[in-house]
Amino acid sequence: MIIEDTITEMYNNLQHAQGTFLDDFKLKYEDDTYQKAQPINVVNIKIRRPCSKFPSEGMDESYDVFVKKTGSYIWANEVWGALRGLETFSQLVFRGPDDVLYIKDSVINDYPRFPHRGLLIDSSRHFIFKEVIYDVLEGMAQNKMNVLHWHIVDDQSFPYQSKIYPDLSEKGAYHPSFVYSHEDIADIIEYARMRGVRIMPEFDTPGHTYSWGLSHPEIMTQCYQGAHPVNGYVGPLDPSKNHTYSFLKNLFREILHVFQDQYIHLGGDEVPMTCWSSNPDVLKLLNTLNGKPDAPINLQNNDPYMYSYDIRKVLEFYEKRLTRDLKDLGKARKNDVRFVMWQEIMNNNVQLPNDTIIQIWQGDMGDVQRAIDMGYNTLYSTCWYLDLIEYGTKWPKYYNCDPADNTMGYQIDEKKVLGGEACLWAEYIDNENLMTTLWPRASAVAERLWSSKDVRDLDSAGKRLSEHRCRMLGRGLSVAHISGPDYCLRRGHRRDGERSTNCTGGRCHHVQNVIEKFNFKVQQRGHSLADCNQLIPQGTPSVVSAVVVFLVLIAVFISLRVSGSRIVQIKICRNKTIFIAFVTLIAIYFMCYTSLWMQVQEFRGSFEKRIKSYGSEKIS
Amino acid sequence: MIIEDTITEMYNNLQHAQGTFLDDFKLKYEDDTYQKAQPINVVNIKIRRPCSKFPSEGMDESYDVFVKKTGSYIWANEVWGALRGLETFSQLVFRGPDDVLYIKDSVINDYPRFPHRGLLIDSSRHFIFKEVIYDVLEGMAQNKMNVLHWHIVDDQSFPYQSKIYPDLSEKGAYHPSFVYSHEDIADIIEYARMRGVRIMPEFDTPGHTYSWGLSHPEIMTQCYQGAHPVNGYVGPLDPSKNHTYSFLKNLFREILHVFQDQYIHLGGDEVPMTCWSSNPDVLKLLNTLNGKPDAPINLQNNDPYMYSYDIRKVLEFYEKRLTRDLKDLGKARKNDVRFVMWQEIMNNNVQLPNDTIIQIWQGDMGDVQRAIDMGYNTLYSTCWYLDLIEYGTKWPKYYNCDPADNTMGYQIDEKKVLGGEACLWAEYIDNENLMTTLWPRASAVAERLWSSKDVRDLDSAGKRLSEHRCRMLGRGLSVAHISGPDYCLRRGHRRDGERSTNCTGGRCHHVQNVIEKFNFKVQQRGHSLADCNQLIPQGTPSVVSAVVVFLVLIAVFISLRVSGSRIVQIKICRNKTIFIAFVTLIAIYFMCYTSLWMQVQEFRGSFEKRIKSYGSEKIS
Repeated sequence: MIIEDTITEMYNNLQHAQGTFLDDFKLKYEDDTYQKAQPINVVNIKIRRPCSKFPSEGMDESYDVFVKKTGSYIWANEVWGALRGLETFSQLVFRGPDDVLYIKDSVINDYPRFPHRGLLIDSSRHFIFKEVIYDVLEGMAQNKMNVLHWHIVDDQSFPYQSKIYPDLSEKGAYHPSFVYSHEDIADIIEYARMRGVRIMPEFDTPGHTYSWGLSHPEIMTQCYQGAHPVNGYVGPLDPSKNHTYSFLKNLFREILHVFQDQYIHLGGDEVPMTCWSSNPDVLKLLNTLNGKPDAPINLQNNDPYMYSYDIRKVLEFYEKRLTRDLKDLGKARKNDVRFVMWQEIMNNNVQLPNDTIIQIWQGDMGDVQRAIDMGYNTLYSTCWYLDLIEYGTKWPKYYNCDPADNTMGYQIDEKKVLGGEACLWAEYIDNENLMTTLWPRASAVAERLWSSKDVRDLDSAGKRLSEHRCRMLGRGLSVAHISGPDYCLRRGHRRDGERSTNCTGGRCHHVQNVIEKFNFKVQQRGHSLADCNQLIPQGTPSVVSAVVVFLVLIAVFISLRVSGSRIVQIKICRNKTIFIAFVTLIAIYFMCYTSLWMQVQEFRGSFEKRIKSYGSEKIS
Repeated sequence: MIIEDTITEMYNNLQHAQGTFLDDFKLKYEDDTYQKAQPINVVNIKIRRPCSKFPSEGMDESYDVFVKKTGSYIWANEVWGALRGLETFSQLVFRGPDDVLYIKDSVINDYPRFPHRGLLIDSSRHFIFKEVIYDVLEGMAQNKMNVLHWHIVDDQSFPYQSKIYPDLSEKGAYHPSFVYSHEDIADIIEYARMRGVRIMPEFDTPGHTYSWGLSHPEIMTQCYQGAHPVNGYVGPLDPSKNHTYSFLKNLFREILHVFQDQYIHLGGDEVPMTCWSSNPDVLKLLNTLNGKPDAPINLQNNDPYMYSYDIRKVLEFYEKRLTRDLKDLGKARKNDVRFVMWQEIMNNNVQLPNDTIIQIWQGDMGDVQRAIDMGYNTLYSTCWYLDLIEYGTKWPKYYNCDPADNTMGYQIDEKKVLGGEACLWAEYIDNENLMTTLWPRASAVAERLWSSKDVRDLDSAGKRLSEHRCRMLGRGLSVAHISGPDYCLRRGHRRDGERSTNCTGGRCHHVQNVIEKFNFKVQQRGHSLADCNQLIPQGTPSVVSAVVVFLVLIAVFISLRVSGSRIVQIKICRNKTIFIAFVTLIAIYFMCYTSLWMQVQEFRGSFEKRIKSYGSEKIS
């Protein structure tokens, strides 16, 4: 169960709660946050809709944290909000010298600005060990990011271990042991799910596929020099052969089964179309697309414009056929399939299904606007290429960047901007420096994607960043320092082997033996997760809202009818029956579909379907 | 004993000997190095002068490695050469699939180009944990670097825990636990000694001393705005007060006791002399130095040239007095004391003792030449500021840089260039990213400082660098990747806790349980180290050489006398007695003072004072 495991993890995190010991006479973050805090020994977590099993684009991550002397609560509509609320709670709490947890009175209503707060990792340029991916996912959870964009294969290596085409990794991986089996991937997906993080794989085609050709040369385009094929010089996938598409369909059938997320990233970037332009079969295809199937093929053509204007039709043909095939495959899935593609697809004017997301990585808001104008949703990454390291305090430029920035005169429709992604390409990144290069620089991106657009102050962000960096260290992540001379009493644990590493399937049971007298209590509406059969479809809240609004409108209409032409407010007040019905409807709406309902229930003490109580004695 | 511990370490390193298993079908470094290799089960290490206990500027690091079917030998004059030879040997050897070690026939005669191959770490901007310093030292040994320049204190913090002035770190350290006690320092020195690395501390004055003032405001210069002191604005140490010098003398007396190396770095860089120029007491001192003790003090003086021309006399006064005091303190030490200073001392025309080393960090060969012209020895660092990170493959610029580069028309006297230092300033470096930022980039510097000037080929250096990086990983160091997409089957061990961490005083006993049938045998001339009373002074070889040369000259002179005016060669051949005496003298010289002697001894089988034999059964 997601919440159960998160709470186990939280016990571990609370060991390292900020503030260390109050008798630390040089305590860095000493202020009245700590002086005015109260000891806390129970937190009640209440989840309204416990039936969401997998994180998705539409997941509800909103939550309320309510800490008063009368009690401490985390309310959320879905478990994902509860996870985010627990994270926030764990950042507010600190451990006193008496090993008791303290927290200041707080009332927080929080929700993300963007639904897609992503991070790209690249396991092709350098292979990334599974435990490092776990570390990345932990970091994401601690920064409320929710999509791991896994650029799993590329030119350099093919570590995805396919069952249907095992030779892809046998010949394409750096080493037989440097592969991700289906079991590895399932473990990673599960580890991510437990933290409310989606795993969105990228299988980049038709370019960036050199490693595919090591085992499957038959699907690669043979590049020509004039009329002659050049031995060993192969280009992108060959769009002129049916075999390419049937191969891809078989492979993606498996991939869509292994990766359960609704979205898959299909790449489409940096396609070396000059190779296509040199190949007679591709040119024949182009002639056909141009309606001139019998036109002569000129292989001497060196017209540089050929690439940019004409051959793009081949790319369009390829992408349309691939996405159509994948949509067919998607029909066999519960959640269908949707695509993310790099901005070249838009640059080359390729029109794909409207639920496709265009990821902007080279351009600015002009490109965002253009993608939206073409009907696409967008993700922004241009300013967040974290692998491009520089000396100095550089996080403010990540922090200042906005994926829906209207300051330059654009009128970006923020609903079409689903968010953005920090990208950590791995030319110079491997297992040793991945975490220190990623964090806490990605934390600046994470705050930009979660918080309100007007949270922009660099000074206060810098303080939060330093504090959060120290917190991440305390929780065992080996994260770097990015803001000049400073100190943190913590150190990444894993380096010293203090951290348990026997994690499988997202379950890491850490030893906890310090904090006592502290309990998490979880309440969920209705049945337990085990009994949950997805009875409440995800669309319910908006349907109910529509019904309520409709009823309210009827009430208003009736009251207006009854009141005739007289002033409405007065008449409503006089016509008590209708007024009461009206107020009741609004009250029911708020009580049923906001956390207010739970708060009221709580104070009445009538909602006592306790599923489980987690006490310190339960943790091994 | 140094060699004993190194051998223990070597057993551990050999576990990870390059080449992994020959049955690795995608073995990266497969070539006939491995195919032609022979199994090896004993290496004889022979050391001529075993009495060198501490690494020093004049230590002899030369060695010969001789591997033939008849036997494998490492010959060295001093234990330091044996350490370097063992390192080279361990890089040549590889482990076969049968857990036996293999090595190709090799004859190597190797010695360093520069005696000072240094690395600067900075424990003031960020505190560095002891175990990370151990890691740094291990990396240095694996790269044959020999001086750790420990920039221990600075403006930001004062982690050196003094016994005579404990308040320096009590008030100046980031945190009470972020200090280096005398015991910590002794451990670090011992750990370094075991690896043939000197620890050269830097106590930078009179600038870079903000943290000193937190406990000792009385030694700081009060800065003035016009005629008024500015509260809280203090400058460098106050050169006008006797108290400053007596304080420094007390502190350095302790420091020279704690740090045993002959050299201490006194800093002297970036002194904010504008503050001095604003202070009436300093100006009074300046007047005295100018021979005008009664001249009026003008605190309104804003003449920008005042800083650059006049006030420098105060710096000269300060440095001369400090170094004179330290030379006095040095008389109480066996090895005296010598100084290293940043190039500002030269820039400001300060003339210090001629055995002082000037470290060039801003300038080019023109500055090196100028320092030499002023009579100083030099170290070069300008091109090796490793903390200034950049994206991409940047190690070639470190590799191409030469500390005695005559290509621009200079005629640098290479004997006056003692070497150079890679500098890792710690504004953006802390325990988490220190090792990955340092290595393997410093390896490029290390090779430049060790190898012959004409070893410059980037392609072969790149291959060595990749291989060595993988080797360092295999030996447990968490080093980064700096040369683009690639792979290494190893991973830094410490991250996974596989590496033993109970190291004290340089002794880390690693579990070794894989390699069998392999022995190191150590022979040393004369008594064992325990009996060694430094009977042979370090100057011996050159004295003996001089005597031999003198005798040879006498022989030549006599033979010339006897032969009269006839052609010398013929006469010598005729006068057999003198000729034989002549040849014998030369033979004795070579046999006694080069490894040839040992080789001859070996083949005669007469030198059998075996001190100890290290077999696999001896290692716990």
